[in-house]
Amino acid sequence: MSSGPLDELIGLLARLPGLGPRSARRAALALVQKRRVLLEPLAEAMTEVARTARECLICGNIGTSEQCDICSDPKRDGSTICVVESVADLWAMERAQVFRGRYHVMGGTLSALDGIGPEDLNLPRLADRIAQDGVTEVILALGATVDGQTTAHYIADMLADRGIPVTSLAQGVPVGGELDYLDDGTITAALSARRQMR
Amino acid sequence: MSSGPLDELIGLLARLPGLGPRSARRAALALVQKRRVLLEPLAEAMTEVARTARECLICGNIGTSEQCDICSDPKRDGSTICVVESVADLWAMERAQVFRGRYHVMGGTLSALDGIGPEDLNLPRLADRIAQDGVTEVILALGATVDGQTTAHYIADMLADRGIPVTSLAQGVPVGGELDYLDDGTITAALSARRQMR
Repeated sequence: MSSGPLDELIGLLARLPGLGPRSARRAALALVQKRRVLLEPLAEAMTEVARTARECLICGNIGTSEQCDICSDPKRDGSTICVVESVADLWAMERAQVFRGRYHVMGGTLSALDGIGPEDLNLPRLADRIAQDGVTEVILALGATVDGQTTAHYIADMLADRGIPVTSLAQGVPVGGELDYLDDGTITAALSARRQMR
Repeated sequence: MSSGPLDELIGLLARLPGLGPRSARRAALALVQKRRVLLEPLAEAMTEVARTARECLICGNIGTSEQCDICSDPKRDGSTICVVESVADLWAMERAQVFRGRYHVMGGTLSALDGIGPEDLNLPRLADRIAQDGVTEVILALGATVDGQTTAHYIADMLADRGIPVTSLAQGVPVGGELDYLDDGTITAALSARRQMR
């Protein structure tokens, strides 16, 4: 169908999340047709990321040195640690631009089905950080799923004797959400967590 | 949100067809997490394609030398030329594994709206090939769109005085298609091109 290197490129592109064989072909053609402005810069960017990207030794975020940008930023508040499942979730929190503390990336959630126990997660390092850093609050920003909530309870139990407040994100009606389209679980959670208006 | 090289990678990935900012972030994370098996091979494949890919001087297909694999394959029948809009369409024809002749990639269709005239397409080279190569049939495999059909008629007129049969792909009911879901134009075309069963 085409030449060797191009076939290999298509095969690799098809393994990216969100791309299948068909869209990988389209992407490969676009790359060849935009060689100077897209293909060459992308090849260079990938080589650069492959060379420099590494996991932060403190929080598990991805950066270019032993400490990520957030852990080494003196303006971030080290006394508040936000625990997230994945780097993708950390990025989602950062996009909201509302949290100014530091993070801790678990690398997954506890899951009986998938056989993921506490020892598979980045949990010991979290206990170490809390022991050392003068932490005053741990915010659990885990998914509102069974596994996410199981993990949240496990961490809350683990930290129970440290005397540090452990909080979790509120559950309720999402901003812009209409009640008519909400599932029962969300409505139940929003009702039971209702707030006094005045 | 993240480090410089990673941001640049996400920005470039988001410019691929089929990927937006959100899926580009997912793809970038997958790349970083699969560095050895995906990121590094992909960077190498892109560098290799950027170095070697070029347009075939004869037909306009993409290959790694002055003549593409199809034009230089002695087993392909040089007397039949299939005219296609784009390299993507050439690949689609090749996937069907039914055509054993050679191709001619136009690089687009005539389009009054987009201001694309005959001089913007790979047309002179087609006339040259037909004059030289002992071509016995030209098959127009252009899209069943207004622009595609306009282009087909233009080429048929251009080649009218060469005494070579110019054919085009049949229009009709697609294989697996149900009449109930077909548009009127397709049913009209299929009816007017109906065939004697015996």
